[in-house]
Order: sequence, then structure tokens, then C-alpha cells
Amino acid sequence: MEQNYDRIKSIIAHLLPLEISNTNASVDAAPAITAEKPRAQIPKWNKDELRDYLESNPSYKQVKQNLQNFLKDPIFAPKYNMNCEQWREVTLQRSIKVINSGLISLAEFNRDPMKYLLSMELLNLSDPSLSVKLGVHFSLFGNAVLNLGTEKHHLKYIKDIDTWKLPGCFGMTELGHGSNVQGVETTATYDKDTQEFIINTPSDSAQKFWIGNAALHGQACAVFAQLYIGGVHYGVHVFVVPIRNADGSTATNVRIMDNGYKLGLQGVDNGRLWFDNKRIPRDNLLNKFGDVMPDGSYVTSIPSKNKRFGSMVAPLVGGRVLIASSALNAAKLSLIIAIRYAYARRQFGSKGNEIPIIQYLTHQRRLFPLIAATVALNFPVLQLKQIYCEPNKTPQNVKDVHIWASGLKAVVSWHKTHTLQQVRECCGGQGFSAFNQIATLKSDLEIDMTYEGDNHVLLQQVAKNLLVELQKGRYTVTLPNHGVKIQNSDFQIQCFKWRESHLVQTLSSKIMSALDVGVGLEHSWNDNLDVITALGKAYIERITLEYFQAAIKKASANLQPVLELCRNLYFSSRVENDLGFFLCNDGLTHETGLKIQESVNKLCGDMLPVALDIVNSFDIPEQFVHAPIAKPDYIQEFRYGLERNY
Amino acid sequence: MEQNYDRIKSIIAHLLPLEISNTNASVDAAPAITAEKPRAQIPKWNKDELRDYLESNPSYKQVKQNLQNFLKDPIFAPKYNMNCEQWREVTLQRSIKVINSGLISLAEFNRDPMKYLLSMELLNLSDPSLSVKLGVHFSLFGNAVLNLGTEKHHLKYIKDIDTWKLPGCFGMTELGHGSNVQGVETTATYDKDTQEFIINTPSDSAQKFWIGNAALHGQACAVFAQLYIGGVHYGVHVFVVPIRNADGSTATNVRIMDNGYKLGLQGVDNGRLWFDNKRIPRDNLLNKFGDVMPDGSYVTSIPSKNKRFGSMVAPLVGGRVLIASSALNAAKLSLIIAIRYAYARRQFGSKGNEIPIIQYLTHQRRLFPLIAATVALNFPVLQLKQIYCEPNKTPQNVKDVHIWASGLKAVVSWHKTHTLQQVRECCGGQGFSAFNQIATLKSDLEIDMTYEGDNHVLLQQVAKNLLVELQKGRYTVTLPNHGVKIQNSDFQIQCFKWRESHLVQTLSSKIMSALDVGVGLEHSWNDNLDVITALGKAYIERITLEYFQAAIKKASANLQPVLELCRNLYFSSRVENDLGFFLCNDGLTHETGLKIQESVNKLCGDMLPVALDIVNSFDIPEQFVHAPIAKPDYIQEFRYGLERNY
Ligand SMILES: Cc1cc2nc3c(=O)[nH]c(=O)nc-3n(C[C@H](O)[C@H](O)[C@H](O)COP(=O)(O)OP(=O)(O)OC[C@H]3O[C@@H](n4cnc5c(N)ncnc54)[C@H](O)[C@@H]3O)c2cc1C
Ligand SMILES: Cc1cc2nc3c(=O)[nH]c(=O)nc-3n(C[C@H](O)[C@H](O)[C@H](O)COP(=O)(O)OP(=O)(O)OC[C@H]3O[C@@H](n4cnc5c(N)ncnc54)[C@H](O)[C@@H]3O)c2cc1C
Repeated sequence: MEQNYDRIKSIIAHLLPLEISNTNASVDAAPAITAEKPRAQIPKWNKDELRDYLESNPSYKQVKQNLQNFLKDPIFAPKYNMNCEQWREVTLQRSIKVINSGLISLAEFNRDPMKYLLSMELLNLSDPSLSVKLGVHFSLFGNAVLNLGTEKHHLKYIKDIDTWKLPGCFGMTELGHGSNVQGVETTATYDKDTQEFIINTPSDSAQKFWIGNAALHGQACAVFAQLYIGGVHYGVHVFVVPIRNADGSTATNVRIMDNGYKLGLQGVDNGRLWFDNKRIPRDNLLNKFGDVMPDGSYVTSIPSKNKRFGSMVAPLVGGRVLIASSALNAAKLSLIIAIRYAYARRQFGSKGNEIPIIQYLTHQRRLFPLIAATVALNFPVLQLKQIYCEPNKTPQNVKDVHIWASGLKAVVSWHKTHTLQQVRECCGGQGFSAFNQIATLKSDLEIDMTYEGDNHVLLQQVAKNLLVELQKGRYTVTLPNHGVKIQNSDFQIQCFKWRESHLVQTLSSKIMSALDVGVGLEHSWNDNLDVITALGKAYIERITLEYFQAAIKKASANLQPVLELCRNLYFSSRVENDLGFFLCNDGLTHETGLKIQESVNKLCGDMLPVALDIVNSFDIPEQFVHAPIAKPDYIQEFRYGLERNY
Repeated sequence: MEQNYDRIKSIIAHLLPLEISNTNASVDAAPAITAEKPRAQIPKWNKDELRDYLESNPSYKQVKQNLQNFLKDPIFAPKYNMNCEQWREVTLQRSIKVINSGLISLAEFNRDPMKYLLSMELLNLSDPSLSVKLGVHFSLFGNAVLNLGTEKHHLKYIKDIDTWKLPGCFGMTELGHGSNVQGVETTATYDKDTQEFIINTPSDSAQKFWIGNAALHGQACAVFAQLYIGGVHYGVHVFVVPIRNADGSTATNVRIMDNGYKLGLQGVDNGRLWFDNKRIPRDNLLNKFGDVMPDGSYVTSIPSKNKRFGSMVAPLVGGRVLIASSALNAAKLSLIIAIRYAYARRQFGSKGNEIPIIQYLTHQRRLFPLIAATVALNFPVLQLKQIYCEPNKTPQNVKDVHIWASGLKAVVSWHKTHTLQQVRECCGGQGFSAFNQIATLKSDLEIDMTYEGDNHVLLQQVAKNLLVELQKGRYTVTLPNHGVKIQNSDFQIQCFKWRESHLVQTLSSKIMSALDVGVGLEHSWNDNLDVITALGKAYIERITLEYFQAAIKKASANLQPVLELCRNLYFSSRVENDLGFFLCNDGLTHETGLKIQESVNKLCGDMLPVALDIVNSFDIPEQFVHAPIAKPDYIQEFRYGLERNY
């Protein structure tokens, strides 16, 4: 004991002078002695090979290259210092430029959704306001016309959509109803005398709210409204409603207001709409799943109101796929910036021999698990895009796409938000500058967690589906095998399966006991939302690990070691994050728990020599990396006289 | 088993129709049956009493009221949609208005720092750009003059600072050196022939970077530079250097560039400075801790270069105190907004009987622990302000202020960031609107974690100090007593003490073993930064709990129950967050671990009837709550025709 204190005393003698100061090493201290720790040697790989492997859509290389070249036009050069009006004007001009290029269109979306997806991803990397403005027009409004409408609508609208002659809006959300779309208050009453629908906003809470393109440029809106015929309610249907005339003036019986300034996406003109018994022709009902005959009789192929509603909101799925993949790109881009800077930036240590900040264990722990998770999530997202674009989907595919799109949209958008936050902080003051891109990504993509389905609501969709799987006997609790190493992929998958299985069984039994004592179903569901959310996340982490491992098996021997490193770090850091659960429920022993924590540190050490190579192999075209701190010599980027005029 | 599956089947029959849809209850579903759970009854309290108790500075009531009245002037009304130039102009005009009012001044700061602190807090609530711009001028530049300078400086500068005749900058950071201030490259070479200092920027990495007020309005800058006399290096000293003339033109031998557009704080004109062998009189050295005689001899009362440096950066402490208290206010304000909205906002459930979103367990779990932590952190922050403002500080006080300011600045700013993120998401789309304030708070206060000392670096200061305490034998590992209830405050404090003690001992023995095998001190320190960071946080959580509990003891019987509820939820949610550590290291049993998780849910239930009252008792003047969603009838706030012209 005494001896210990003597040692500490001498340490403190070293540390004390610095205690009150803002530094942990004085300028002229001697270089630190270091005992190199043994590290796993990850063999070098070919960066192009890893890039292609992450992208995994070789047949679209040329498509992407064409759009990338197009996006080099000066109109797309980054801009920051603008007010709302200027932002919107720039975004409009950029949108028109894209439209005129013909590189993105609704016709294309219909013919080759993968091309559309990949193109929208690139637009999002270039400018999120641009991709959201066009996304509302094509993926939401256009997609509604395409998939909720029938041939008459296709003939009438598609061409005008593709030329921006008819800029479109998607009018689902109201002030009073966001996540609960089935609760919208707007009514569409059929008037059989004139063969028109009367679209009406019965109250201020029924105003359409947050509608992209509505504040300035939209001319038509796909309006979600409760259909009434002769006093009978048929549920939510979608109608094409003119909101502006070709000259930009507001259509009759429509009132429009602006949603105003926002945290981000200033270029998107979100607006609010009121309809004052606005009459539209019968043909404006998008009638694929439910139609009204001239005489007012209702015809549908889907008798269940709920199922019909499900079809009405189907256009949202594509948006979710796009959010998941774009959020993953944002995580990649921001990690490229933070990692390059972290290897170049030196802070503290002896003069002339200052320490690159990536050497600090905290810095590794803040960033490396995020690299690992980004690589891991790459694979289920690829798979999702693949099945989403499948032309002839089986019913199982349709269901998978829905569940996966919901779960991955939630998990990847949170991952992106968490990554951007860490990256912002890891870059110190530089992370606060607009020029270094992180600020803009953070602001513009913040809403990813909310729109096209709130993350918390989406995870409930996932969990519901897993209860079905439970019923089918898919789940059997097996405890992870404690004998094996934590780097073993079977063991890792088993751990995640065990957790998921434990959660779904807990959920089911909790709901049943609540029902037993007379608690209503909705209530017992809402009372267990903590388990439900954990279950949704656990499911996504399990499939992530499985798809990642399946992809590793198919990778070349050259790539496998670095991918395995990522998998191990993904696994260890996710378990570390949820260690309380694993231990409390006897899924892991204390011994393994302690090993997990050590293993995160060790794997960070293993990643140190290769992290820069990993992010430099990400499939993010260099043209989108503007940040001066991501350039080879960031000091030079800030030399006197070099103005940044954006 | 069979029977179980039957039950699940029926549940799924209920849930399945919703599976593909975006909702979890159809519009016309029957109202849910609910079995009310037994809840702790928290007796009502007097809101004013709680407010006064949280504020705890009764003698400053009038001071605050005066400033609040002043801040009702229309010039301070919220504004959002502006570009950088407009923002800066508005902020300048607001600053001048404040200066002219005489309500805030350097003289006052010197005479009554508490008044200054509380006033700056209010400015921060009104507009963070305003408080940061004035903070740089008064708390940094002015404070440097006051506390690093001597009488000649006070006589020469204080009046001009107080009238804004001499707008000031604080030139510490350089492009190449941020956290490591001792590494700045700017030199100040004494020329005894002319009795001048030659201030020089030897390289682009030495440019002063991020300097508030430098881009447009600053006329003088407190420049941190390495002092050289006759080739001998004396360490970092601070000099008053003119950077602009009274007419606004740039001073000779100074070059200035703009830091440009940022994530937030657009109203602050951060700039970059180069000095080209700029000559300044000998008197411009702020010479309290080290002086240069006309003949070039160096005089100091603090022979140690490191300790002297510590004194030079002392002005930062006040800034840290202010960040901690302002961050806490931002957490309070944002929780007021999110909680009011969560009780008013209804989503899902049966028509006419929709469920307020606060009823969802996830929503409670996302927000209530943050309320508890905000109330808990209130008390160490109050204590910090008190000792910081103590006129005759003991050496122990000085040290406490340094350690507490470092640790609380880090922990509270992270708490604020985490709170704003949750609040943003909890308010759905509304959280993205500038009008609802969350967006602005999120952007403007994001940098809190970085400036005036990066959080990760500050926690290292805390940990270092705890090693000293360890040496003094302050720590003895005692395991929490497992027999007692988790609501017992002694047990709770014991748990946090045990964790802290475990961490400090682990740290000390890890460093010693590393030294044993020849690893350098800096290296072994950096290799253990995970433990160091955890230790810093654990210390702050422990003192938070202790000060909170001490405050509870002193509270009226009326207030105690609600405060105890907050303490219990703070404790449980913090332990839940760190459960892996507690279990792995045998600090808590699995049984207690499971109880902790249940207890968070139960305490959320207990808080449900009173959360609105708690946030409405926060000491945030209503005039700063602009958000329409925080108003009694938020739908009315969005009625047609009501324009928000800011
Ligand atoms: C920039 C922007 C652009 C948009 N563009 C469009 C557009 O073009 N067209 C359009 O129609 N809409 C658009 N929206 C609206 C968007 O789709 C909605 O904001 C989103 O659906 C969420 O709805 P809400 O904002 O009403 O939140 P709410 O549904 O009110 O949710 C508020 C909070 O309550 C929680 N919550 C709600 N229900 C539950 C539950 N059952 N269980 C647990 N928690 C729950 C949520 O997690 C959330 O935190 C846009 C929004 C924004 C901000
Ligand atoms: C809006 C704004 C206003 C400002 N105003 C002023 C001003 O008026 N005057 C002024 O002088 N400065 C000002 N600053 C600068 C500010 O003080 C610095 O940004 C801050 O000190 C951090 O330094 P840095 O940005 O160089 O980050 P760095 O010190 O380079 O840190 C970068 C990253 O490395 C990590 N890191 C660094 N060292 C260590 C370590 N030893 N251990 C573990 N991790 C480490 C940090 O955690 C951080 O994540 C301002 C900055 C901003 C953004």
C-alpha cells in the first residue's frame, strides 16, 4: 500500500503542474517513451476492390459516373450563407437543371428504380435540399400518381411531372395528425350531381402542414383525405388537387401559408394548405385501390379498410429506403472528414513531435466503432435496395421490404445522427464551420428521424411483425455458448439471436399478463414500448450481423481480414452498449462482459493502422468531399488570402 | 405452450391489420380499457416556492427583473431568417443596446460577479449570439485586462470596454493549436532598444483562429504569445494588441480574414488574425503574473512556467461557469417546450379520445430522466456559481472552482446536447421549425462542448485531481449495501462513491503497471483515457447526487417528495445507463440490476401526473418561451392568417 502511494506520488508530481492549466503536456517535455502493444496485422487491400464491394452495383457504374459529371456544374457548387428566400431560389434553379438534364425522371423511376435510387443518393450527397425538393416531387407526388393512380393518371400527369410543368406536393401530414395518418381530418365528399369531390379543411388542426413545395412552387398536391359518399365513410384516399395556377397564383378555394425558417433544408419550401370546399373532378381520385363510380357507388379490390390504407401509404416505403441509404452515405462522408483530420491534426505532446489526435484512446473509441457500424450496416442496406428494386416481388418480399425499410430507416438514421454528433465534436472548432460540411449535414439530415415515418413508430412495426414470427415458432431461446471466443462469428450471431428471442418472448408474456388482468391491448402495448423499441433495434442488429457475415464469406481473401475486424468491433461495441441487458438476463457472464470491454480497446488498437485506408475505401466520390480539413494539407487550406466564397 | 400461442394469435389478429400501415390504432377503434397502475402520489407544491428554490439567489430577484424588462424591447424579439451579414448587424445593434443600458459592465463584473453571471444567463436565454459576442468582449477580453493586467491597464481600458469604445477580442486559439494553448506559435519578442514587443505570426498554422469579434468589430485583442527576451523563452503571456483603428480600418501590420458561415452563432463575427512583426508598447503586456522591465529583465511572482501558465488561462474559468449554467437553462427551456407539447399533443387512439403522446412509455423514458437530471444538476451548478463568486476564495476554493467548472462544464453541456436532441425528436416535425426554438438552441449551443476547453480535455483535469485525492487516502472501496432499497439516498450515494473509487483505483494501478513495463507517462495516460473519462463523469455524478441530497434535506416538507422523485429517477437512470460496469465489477447484483430497470419505468409512471408542474416550476422566465407548441392551445397558434414575421 505504502509503496503504491509512493508511485502515485511521483505520477502526480508529473501531472500536477498541468492540473490548473489547460494542457496535459508542456511544450518542451521530452518525447514520451512508448511500449508498442502487439497489434493484429491487417494486410493491405486494394481500395478500389473494397469500394466496389461496398457499392456492389457494378452495372450502374456508368449511370453514376454520368450524374457525377453532371453534378460538377458550378450551379451545384456548395453554398452556405443565404437566407431562406435565397436558399429556395438556388434550390429551384438546381432542381430545374436536374430536370432538364433528363437524368432523373418518373418514367425512369418506373422503369429502373435502382437507377433512380442511386441517382437520388448522389443528389443527396451534393445538396440535401435539392434531393428532398425533388424527392417530394418524384418519390412522393410522382410515386403516388404512379402507384395509387391508374392509366388515365399516368397519361395525364407523368409527362408534366417529368418536365416540371406540374411541380407536385405530397399532402399527407396535417397540423393535428402526423404519424397517425389514418386520423387526418381533411374530407373528400363525393357530389354525384356534379361528379366532383369536395375537398375540405374542417378545422385549423386539419390544415396540411409541412408540405414540401407547397409554400412556393407546387401546382398540384396529392391530398390524403377521408372519403365520404352519401354520408358513408370509406377511409383515407388520395386525390390530385390543384393548388396553384400555371402563372403561380393560388388556385381558387385554396389558402396557403409558409412553414418558415427551419433547422435545415432551407431550400425546401414547406408550406401549409387549407381547402375551402374545393371542387375537383371525379377523375382526380387516385383510384387504383378504391374507386367511386359516377353514381356514387364504391368499388375496391381490397375490402378491408385497414389493408386498403396500407396500400395508400405504400409510396412511403421508397422514401424510407432512400433515407436509410442516404443516411449511411452521410455517416460515411462525415467519417471520411473526421478520420482524415484526426490523422493529420496534432495536439499536445512535445514540440515538433506532437501527437495526432487519433492516438488518443478516447478519439479511437469515439470514431472506430462508428466506422465498424457503418461498414456493417452497408450490407443489410444493400440487400434492402436490392429487394426493393426487384420487379416481381413475392408477397414475402413485399413484407420484408416494409419491415426492413421501417427498421433500417430508424436504425441507420439514428446511427447517422450519432455519427455526425461524434464527428462534430471530434473535429473540435473545425466541426462547427459550415465549410467542413458536418454542420450542414447535421442540420439538413436531422429530420431523417422524423419524416417518412417517425423512428419510434417504425420500430413498432418491426416488433409487431416479430410477434408473428414468434407465433410461427421461429424463436427458441438458446443461450450463447460460453466456451468460444468472442471473435467467433457464430457466437456473435448467437448472442444477438438470443437477445432478440429473449425480448420477443418477454414482450409476448408481458402483453399476455396485462391482458389477463384486463388491461386493454393498446394500453398494454404502450406500456411495453421500452421492450418493443429494444426488440426492433435488436432485430436490426441481428440481421445486420448476419448479412455482414454472409457478405464476408463471399468476399475475397484480400478483403476478409479488414471486414472481420469491422465485424468484431461492431459486435463488441454493440454488446458493450447493451451490456446491462446481457448480464442481468444471464446471456453473458461477467468474465465475458469484462472481455468485451477490453476487446473494444484492443480492436480500436488493431484498427489504428488501417482506419484511414478503410474510410478512403468508402464509396463516396471525392468530388463531394469539400471540407478543407479533409484535404491532404489542411493548414494550407487556411493560408492567408484563400477566400471561400460560398 | 399451445395456449400461449392462441393468445398471441388473437393479439396478432388485432395488430396485423396495422402492420403494413403507418399507425397502431384505427380511427374508429374502441377506447382502450386501462387498468390504472398504482402510482406514488406526489403531493402538490407551490410552483413559486420550487422556482425560488431552484434559483436560490433571492437577493438578485430585482436585478434579474430589471434586465428581463429591458429585454422586452422589440430589438430583442426573436429573428431567424437572416444571412450572416444580417445576423451580425442585428447582434451588433443588440450588443450596443445592452452596453448603453449599463446593465452589464466590466466594472460590475469586478464588483459583483454574481450579478454579471445571472445577467449573462438571461442574455443567453434571449439570444446566444448576443451573449457570446458580449461574453468575448467582457468575460474574456475584459476579464483578461482585469485579472492578468494591473492598475495601469485598468485605468486605461476599463472605461472604454464598458462603453464599447474599445470592442475587444480574446486571441488564444490558433489554427494549429486549440486545446493545447501552451503550444501557440505566435511570438512576442522584446526589443529593449525601443521598449516594444514585436508580435509575430511565424506561419499559417499560427494564425489566430475563431477569434470572436475579430472579423468585423474588434479593435483590440488580448493575444496569447510566447514571450522571448534576448533569445530566452519565458512561456505564454498575454498582450493587448490593436487590430483595428477607431474608424474600423485594419491596423498596420495586422491581416484579418473571416471564419465565415457556421452551424450556429451566426451573429458572432469570428475571425482570423495574422501579425507581421507588429510593434506594441511594453505597457501592453498584461503584467500581473510576469513583467518585463525596460532593460529586458524578467520579473515574476510565479517562478514555475507551468504554474504561471495556469494563471494566464484563469479567465477561462468564468466562461466555463457560464457555459454550465447557460447549458442547464437551455435544458430547462427545451424541456418546458417538449413537456408542454407532449401533454397537449395527441396522436393515435380512438377518435375524440386520442392519446396524449406523453402517455407512451417511450416518450416518458425519453424525457423524464432528463427532467430528473436537470433538477439534480441544478444544485452543483448553484454551488459552483456561489464559490466562483466568493470574494475571498481560499486556495481550496480556487482549486474546487477549477475542478468543478471543468467537470460541470463538460457534463452539463453534454446533458444539454443530449436533452436538445431528445426534445427535437420528441416534438416530431415541430421540433425542426425555427419558431419552436429547439432548432436554434441546438445550433447555437452546439459549440458549448468544444470552446472554453474541450470536454474530453476538461474531464482529464478532473481525473488528475482525483489521483491526488487517492494519494491522500480519500478513497476506500466499499461495496454498496445490497440489503437496502434503491430509493435510499445513502445507498445511492454509496453506489456512486463505489464506482468512482473503483475507477480511480483501476486508473492508478493501470498507469503503474504500464510504467513498470517502461511505457512513458503520457502514453500510459493516453492509453487509459476511457477510464479517465469515465472517472471524470462518475465524479460529477457523485457530487451531483450529494449536493442534490444535501439540498433536499434543507427543502421544505412541501417540496421534498417531488425532489426525491427526481433524485430517485436520476439515480436509477444513471445506473441503468452504466449497468454493465456495475454488474461486471460486482458493484450490483443481477437482481438489483433488474430492479433498476423496472424502477425507471415505475418512476416514470410516478412522474406522469407531475412532470408538467415540475417544468412549469423551472426558473425560466415565461418571456423567453416563444415556441407556439409551448402555448396553452398550440393549434390556435397555427390558425390561418397568423403570420410569424421573424
Ligand atoms: C422538413 C419536413 C418536411 C416534411 N415534408 C412533408 C411532406 O412533403 N408531406 C407530408 O405529408 N408531410 C411532410 N412532413 C411531415 C412529416 O411526415 C411528419 O413530421 C412526421 O410524419 C411526424 O409527424 P408529426 O411531426 O406530427 O409527429 P407526431 O406524430 O406528433 O409525433 C410526435 C412525437 O410523438 C411520438 N409518438 C407519436 N406516436 C407515438 C406512438 N404511437 N408511440 C410512441 N411514440 C409516439 C413520436 O415518436 C414523436 O417523437 C415533413 C416534415 C418536415 C419537418
Ligand atoms: C464559434 C467559436 C468561437 C470561438 N471563440 C474563440 C475566441 O473568441 N477566442 C479563442 O481564443 N478561441 C475561440 N474559439 C476556439 C475554441 O476555444 C477551440 O475551438 C477549442 O479550444 C478547441 O480547440 P480546437 O478546435 O483546436 O480542437 P482540438 O484541440 O484540436 O481538439 C480536436 C479534438 O481532439 C480531441 N483532443 C484534443 N486533445 C486531446 C487530448 N489530450 N486527449 C483526448 N482528446 C483530445 C478533442 O476532444 C477534440 O475532439 C472559438 C471556437 C468556436 C468554434
